[in-house]
Amino acid sequence: MQVSKIAVMGFGVVGSGTVELFYKNRELIEQRCARKMDIKYILDLRDFPGSPFEDKFIKDFSIIENDPEIKVAAELMGGVTFAYDYTKRLLSRGVSVVTSNKELVARHGAELIKLAKANRCNYFFEASVGGGIPIIRPLHQCLAANRIERIAGILNGTTNYILTKMVYDQLPFDQALAEAQRLGYAERDPSADIDGADACRKLCILGSLAFGKHIYPEYVHCSGIRNIALDDLEYVANAGYSVKLIGLIEKTEKGLVATVCPRLVSVSNPLSGVNDVYNAIMIRGDSVGDTLFYGRGAGKQATASAVVADIIDAVKHENADIASLTWEDSADRSFMVPYKSADVRVYVRVSSHDADSLKGLITTLFGYVDFIPRKHRSESELAFITPAIEEYMIDKKLAILSEHADIMRKIRLL
Amino acid sequence: MQVSKIAVMGFGVVGSGTVELFYKNRELIEQRCARKMDIKYILDLRDFPGSPFEDKFIKDFSIIENDPEIKVAAELMGGVTFAYDYTKRLLSRGVSVVTSNKELVARHGAELIKLAKANRCNYFFEASVGGGIPIIRPLHQCLAANRIERIAGILNGTTNYILTKMVYDQLPFDQALAEAQRLGYAERDPSADIDGADACRKLCILGSLAFGKHIYPEYVHCSGIRNIALDDLEYVANAGYSVKLIGLIEKTEKGLVATVCPRLVSVSNPLSGVNDVYNAIMIRGDSVGDTLFYGRGAGKQATASAVVADIIDAVKHENADIASLTWEDSADRSFMVPYKSADVRVYVRVSSHDADSLKGLITTLFGYVDFIPRKHRSESELAFITPAIEEYMIDKKLAILSEHADIMRKIRLL
Repeated sequence: MQVSKIAVMGFGVVGSGTVELFYKNRELIEQRCARKMDIKYILDLRDFPGSPFEDKFIKDFSIIENDPEIKVAAELMGGVTFAYDYTKRLLSRGVSVVTSNKELVARHGAELIKLAKANRCNYFFEASVGGGIPIIRPLHQCLAANRIERIAGILNGTTNYILTKMVYDQLPFDQALAEAQRLGYAERDPSADIDGADACRKLCILGSLAFGKHIYPEYVHCSGIRNIALDDLEYVANAGYSVKLIGLIEKTEKGLVATVCPRLVSVSNPLSGVNDVYNAIMIRGDSVGDTLFYGRGAGKQATASAVVADIIDAVKHENADIASLTWEDSADRSFMVPYKSADVRVYVRVSSHDADSLKGLITTLFGYVDFIPRKHRSESELAFITPAIEEYMIDKKLAILSEHADIMRKIRLL
Repeated sequence: MQVSKIAVMGFGVVGSGTVELFYKNRELIEQRCARKMDIKYILDLRDFPGSPFEDKFIKDFSIIENDPEIKVAAELMGGVTFAYDYTKRLLSRGVSVVTSNKELVARHGAELIKLAKANRCNYFFEASVGGGIPIIRPLHQCLAANRIERIAGILNGTTNYILTKMVYDQLPFDQALAEAQRLGYAERDPSADIDGADACRKLCILGSLAFGKHIYPEYVHCSGIRNIALDDLEYVANAGYSVKLIGLIEKTEKGLVATVCPRLVSVSNPLSGVNDVYNAIMIRGDSVGDTLFYGRGAGKQATASAVVADIIDAVKHENADIASLTWEDSADRSFMVPYKSADVRVYVRVSSHDADSLKGLITTLFGYVDFIPRKHRSESELAFITPAIEEYMIDKKLAILSEHADIMRKIRLL
């Protein structure tokens, strides 16, 4: 029997996890794939003396590119320079590429998928969103009969860990972040996670798949969790909410609206119970209603699970593009509308020398408002939730309110 | 462009939902399928005068069987007599069949998949488990790199609705069932739902896929929710649990253990928050860890979503079997072990003229035990949770205890 030979490019966390998982479950994988498989090359510029895979390491990409035995490669290098170049060169030669590189897919997905189709091979990226959670295939294959109306997800494990830590251990943001860094959940420079860029890339991939147009990161309003205070978490808990960093893309009458920002999530919503480093993605289809996918959104083994699943699919379909996954790339971005044109409810916390006297003004501005009680609430503070109004209007009303009080926080509701 | 012609067999709830969804989202579906499609026949013995699909109805299966234009048929008739016969006849001719018929798949899945493979067509059954929730493909495709260790699911919406109603509205079982019947969630004869047979079939399908051996319903210990009392729900809530009807198949050192029965589920487990008619399935893989899939487990539109997704996949792969889904059928059932040989914790409620005096005996029998407090607990009653012990042993100890008290309830923990 012919043996399918695979190249793994990048031997970092995900790359080494992929190689280890492949050899651990090789027999099972070959059985499910109905053919023999082996990893022929591992591309990495570093040396790994004593590695059990020592004979497979190479430093020169052209060896992979020029080996006709290689029909499937896993790009686990990250970044958008070499990874982009290598992926294009492989796909142009009809070599399928699977990847966990969310940045590259969010940036160049439409082009790379098109290139794969043109060369009768596949570009798969199950591992780019939600780590090991099956989400890309369920979205474009299992829900293919649906018009997708909305995707709302907890797409970043680091921020979810920090928010969980803040609530359960009453740690302020800085301490919770430090704890996440100590455990290796957050990078030394944590900005890509906590300011939302990582979640944004994943949302772009899901949105592009669901709505058929390339959603670039620039189309998404993005704000992170740096400003969330323990006081806010206490208020919102009293009103029956938790705070999560939510990637949200939604079809409105005016067009698509996409945001990554902290949001109040009602405890009756399954997303509100998703804690620690777990991710969850809720997809609403016109026929299926709400479905939710939950699991470890990151980590060596979970991500490797998705990469190897893609490798299996790519090997099974060498020389045939099977993916219905595709989206258009267009300079016209009129299908997106500004997020502030969408109706939204917001939580507001204000401070003033006599906050209670503001209640009348707030009610005049917003109509019926939920004021949130809190034990030992200072008299100088007031928190409330507005009804659903266009966000432009909310901001106008808050501008008026700010003449009489200090607006300390504004958090949207999901 | 050639138009792929489809036959729909059975125009009940799922059949009519499938036809309606197809025409509602036809343009989108054809785009995702990259070809034109139409429903040519609808097979049903009844008349549907005035139906917008009137010209498609036929009563004679042989018309479908003998029409070479039909390459894909949806079997939405239910039952295992005609459905079985028609499915075999179609697959033998190389016509792909998609179905929501869990009874047929649980009974004859191995044979029908084999028949499809032999004739280079496909037998798909995404809609047979979890309604519209993507679960079959994620399990066999996205998690293909994993050794599955455990599947635990809320697989029946009717019983989950009844249990939710009992907790939130404090209705006893009979009244909650009557309410479910009034709303159309439960049949007039509700036994297939409430005694666990429906959940059992779905567990068999998931287990067969995950472990590669046909799991027949007879291999599964099955008990329903008729005996759950409000008193039990109050006790377990005090201990931090909810009660759910759980289908569980698990790999143990001795072999596979499969049960469908009510179980205490810790509130920290995402399954415990799954309420109303929703279903959720938790799959544990050796690499991915726990993943969870959640959504509407039944209903016309949700189920149709899964059926049409299967139709799309079948049309895209006419004349090529693409499914890695497969399992062996074997008369040897030694891979299954009796459920009582597995270690388990159980909740026990006992009654005696002076229950408190039993505490010493219970502790002697079980070692450390969690006694559960309850407001206004009657002195004649005691509830506790045992440590994890082989269930055979638990039953021996309970037999001794029953000499001194009336054992009113025993519910396993997940």
